[in-house]
Amino acid sequence: MKLVSEVLIEDEALRDGLQNEQREFTVAEKLRFIDALVEAGLRRIQVGSFVHPTRVPQMANTDEVFAALPTRPGVTYTALILNRAGLERALAAHVKHLSISVSASETHSRKNVNRSVAEAIEGVKPVISQALANGVVVRGGIQSALGCGYEGAVPLARVCDIAAIYSDLGVQEINIADTAGLGNPKQVFETMKAVSARVRPDVALSLHLHDTRGLGLANLLAGLQAGVTIYDAAVGGVGGCPFIPSATGNIATEDAVFALEEMGVKTGVDWRKLSAVALELEGALGRKLPGRMAHVAQSLDRRRGG
Amino acid sequence: MKLVSEVLIEDEALRDGLQNEQREFTVAEKLRFIDALVEAGLRRIQVGSFVHPTRVPQMANTDEVFAALPTRPGVTYTALILNRAGLERALAAHVKHLSISVSASETHSRKNVNRSVAEAIEGVKPVISQALANGVVVRGGIQSALGCGYEGAVPLARVCDIAAIYSDLGVQEINIADTAGLGNPKQVFETMKAVSARVRPDVALSLHLHDTRGLGLANLLAGLQAGVTIYDAAVGGVGGCPFIPSATGNIATEDAVFALEEMGVKTGVDWRKLSAVALELEGALGRKLPGRMAHVAQSLDRRRGG
Repeated sequence: MKLVSEVLIEDEALRDGLQNEQREFTVAEKLRFIDALVEAGLRRIQVGSFVHPTRVPQMANTDEVFAALPTRPGVTYTALILNRAGLERALAAHVKHLSISVSASETHSRKNVNRSVAEAIEGVKPVISQALANGVVVRGGIQSALGCGYEGAVPLARVCDIAAIYSDLGVQEINIADTAGLGNPKQVFETMKAVSARVRPDVALSLHLHDTRGLGLANLLAGLQAGVTIYDAAVGGVGGCPFIPSATGNIATEDAVFALEEMGVKTGVDWRKLSAVALELEGALGRKLPGRMAHVAQSLDRRRGG
Repeated sequence: MKLVSEVLIEDEALRDGLQNEQREFTVAEKLRFIDALVEAGLRRIQVGSFVHPTRVPQMANTDEVFAALPTRPGVTYTALILNRAGLERALAAHVKHLSISVSASETHSRKNVNRSVAEAIEGVKPVISQALANGVVVRGGIQSALGCGYEGAVPLARVCDIAAIYSDLGVQEINIADTAGLGNPKQVFETMKAVSARVRPDVALSLHLHDTRGLGLANLLAGLQAGVTIYDAAVGGVGGCPFIPSATGNIATEDAVFALEEMGVKTGVDWRKLSAVALELEGALGRKLPGRMAHVAQSLDRRRGG
């Protein structure tokens, strides 16, 4: 079984994880959370999104969080933007790495941004160009790339076409997102191979996986076999998508790290430290999160203690 | 990504699932459960175990369940035995397919059967020979084959040696069990390839996976890539191991079926019917089970209904 030897993990607990939560986290709480992630070895952290505060109030303090973040060599702080207004805020906050995305599903695109897929693509083009012109590293995301909670199957050809457009625009990374957690491993493998064939050789590919059907880590395994070296995850497996029914959280970062390290794939991350962060997050949210390793670690610690 | 084209699933909810539960299921309840599994398309069902009733009271009525089971062409009813006493009961109950197993971990073997691995192997040899002489199809199981909850890593060479002994004894199938859910996909792939090289070509290999660390379906994917065509699972993901701390249930049958069918691997099983069985089982046990698809199905049904 041939896997890549090393991966980069982008933790999205602060953005994809918290955007659905009732509880709003303060700037100080978010900074402490980021400290803990860095301490555990994370090298890329999605800090938040620059979206309208009435739409996602949990992200309203993203500018303040960026302003207060200490510079750390080797650590990338990134954010999600949807449009030019978001880019202006990100540039003002001196953000050097951004994600912007469109959906590959017509229905999801209309529900999410009130535009067709084609309109959404035309909308992000000038934003991406402006970001790149300002020296920002840009990741172009394709939501619902492995299936849509409303429509079901999404044509692979459409995903590849969007990837090719991103590639031509000059983005440095393309993110294939299984927004509703509908993808299966065979499909992940074939999608990543097909996308890879349609983009510049220097474009990095990444995967954004949700664990709705319990296939998150199986899909990660398929990605490793297809040569994908960047994965999104969220501490504790927190999250979902407010606009997609029955979608549950991202793959849990600590579960992904454990699985990867067990298979000899280097992550640079300590899953035990992340498990402690996941348990703290459970405390803050007042409920159990779907990630497994934090509870396994807790159970092992109790056994040792007793 | 090359996968096998068709698999057989053995549902173990009635044995591995229920053996840890406080609630005891009556003969009539077990028969209804089996009816529902057959109706969903399952072709092999582990009905229970012939072990001492004081040790596992939930299995005390296994003889009665077998006596009441209707014969169904194409459906195999199987059971677990530990020793000669169990075999005698199984033969009296006219059981035609049996599992018997040893642990590959010294500590687990001593905790489970109060014998070393070598002693346990010597103990099962005459039982297997007697079963085969009586025309019973025998599956030799290797518990803790991918790691031990007490010891950690278990040498692959020991797993292969046990498999070779089973093969020489004439068993028709060898079951590699990740009893504590410690295995990772790369290891599953390598283990199944190594075991395959040490056994008769006509011996079927099967995998028994637990989802403790969220890797159950990723391990199944690795098995499919290694050519394994028989998988144990349990409706709802019910179960665990009373003698292994922090072990959680088997992979959920409905989740495995969904994943397999999505990848084009034929199972002959209807995951939606199984999901209904899982929800009924949740009702009987009075708690939510870890399987995902039953809840996804429920949420989709609610959406349609609303």
